[in-house]
Amino acid sequence: MSEPMRLISLSHVSDPAITNIYPGDPPFELETVATVEKDGYYLRYVRQGEHTGTHWGAPGHFNRGEPLADELDLEDLHLRAVKIDVREQCARDPGYAVTIADIETWEEVHGRIPDESMVIIWTGWDAKWGTAEFTNAGVDGAPRHPGFAVETVRWLIDTGRLGRRGGTGTDAFSPDVGADATYTVSHLVYQRHRISLEVLANLEALPETGAHILCGGQINRAGSGSPALIYGLLP
Amino acid sequence: MSEPMRLISLSHVSDPAITNIYPGDPPFELETVATVEKDGYYLRYVRQGEHTGTHWGAPGHFNRGEPLADELDLEDLHLRAVKIDVREQCARDPGYAVTIADIETWEEVHGRIPDESMVIIWTGWDAKWGTAEFTNAGVDGAPRHPGFAVETVRWLIDTGRLGRRGGTGTDAFSPDVGADATYTVSHLVYQRHRISLEVLANLEALPETGAHILCGGQINRAGSGSPALIYGLLP
Repeated sequence: MSEPMRLISLSHVSDPAITNIYPGDPPFELETVATVEKDGYYLRYVRQGEHTGTHWGAPGHFNRGEPLADELDLEDLHLRAVKIDVREQCARDPGYAVTIADIETWEEVHGRIPDESMVIIWTGWDAKWGTAEFTNAGVDGAPRHPGFAVETVRWLIDTGRLGRRGGTGTDAFSPDVGADATYTVSHLVYQRHRISLEVLANLEALPETGAHILCGGQINRAGSGSPALIYGLLP
Repeated sequence: MSEPMRLISLSHVSDPAITNIYPGDPPFELETVATVEKDGYYLRYVRQGEHTGTHWGAPGHFNRGEPLADELDLEDLHLRAVKIDVREQCARDPGYAVTIADIETWEEVHGRIPDESMVIIWTGWDAKWGTAEFTNAGVDGAPRHPGFAVETVRWLIDTGRLGRRGGTGTDAFSPDVGADATYTVSHLVYQRHRISLEVLANLEALPETGAHILCGGQINRAGSGSPALIYGLLP
């Protein structure tokens, strides 16, 4: 750590006036409960779901018996990161499912994704943050956004790119294509010690390879994850 | 970051059954609002103060006009750390105020505290976590715990050991001696881009010198700080 390390934030600021809430999640509120003038110090009361705003998720979020937040190792929250830019495909099709071919094309330029990586797709949804376009709800109220194809995640797992550790990341609400109510991709990612990073921001500043991510947030007893300052650590 | 780096956690797990609440702070609750069995995923609703459990504080927590959470730079949350073991003095006197002489004695062994450091005192209060002894309330209900003497913090600031950046850390509720209702130490620390780490855990694992701290948590709009996974980064 005496070596130079550049920090970037991959998180949106948590702000009830802006933060898009996933349909069905509890309300997000920041209430001022003490002020310097009146009380001598300034403090707010935070009320939010464990997956509100930029956050990481623990495997037990989707799979019973898989690790919860306080059962993860710190190394599970510190991973090599790769970024795959699929904004063009997603601009054409908001239900776009990232393919194995997309990843193979990326690997031709950047080399093989290291084992146990955090595999981040940049869908372009970060630019819609704070607007109705981010949720992009269909007639059923469910969100519509791009994600990973099921067979792509199976392939990432089968080949070790996602191993005991690792995970998927996205600037949209979840690694599933939004319209997939089966959450098959989430069920696959959220196993062993793998995590999911969701609602990422500032992906423009993350290089395609060579960076690490380190998850902030807090460790709740039996937590499903945590809203978090997600650091990008750049060499 | 390709260099080996060992991570430790300096945070208690956030657990309403255990977490000591600072007198006057709002209640801390983790409510299960969705389960895998019923909803297909597991989620809790978190309700907590911005300074509940292990946390970092932004300068605006005590001083109007000083930076709030979303006005800090990431580098303010990533600091060289020194640890000063004052458990013996604090075991004898729960109102112990760490002196300039304590720090000079430490520096004779470990060298001068680098400029803009995170200066952490290990009072021994971490061992009382989750019990009434942690708050150690007096007859007036106010907590009783050790902290920094006012003149010690003035000296740390005047000599640059606390600079534009840096801060104080403690395993007790605050850098003030608990009985000091004027919070003079907090007012001094919480200026410029300096932060305060409070309710630290696992200080046994932090070396006296050579480590860095990196603050997790989340960045709230106009936040006073955040409950946080605080990392110790060991070379």
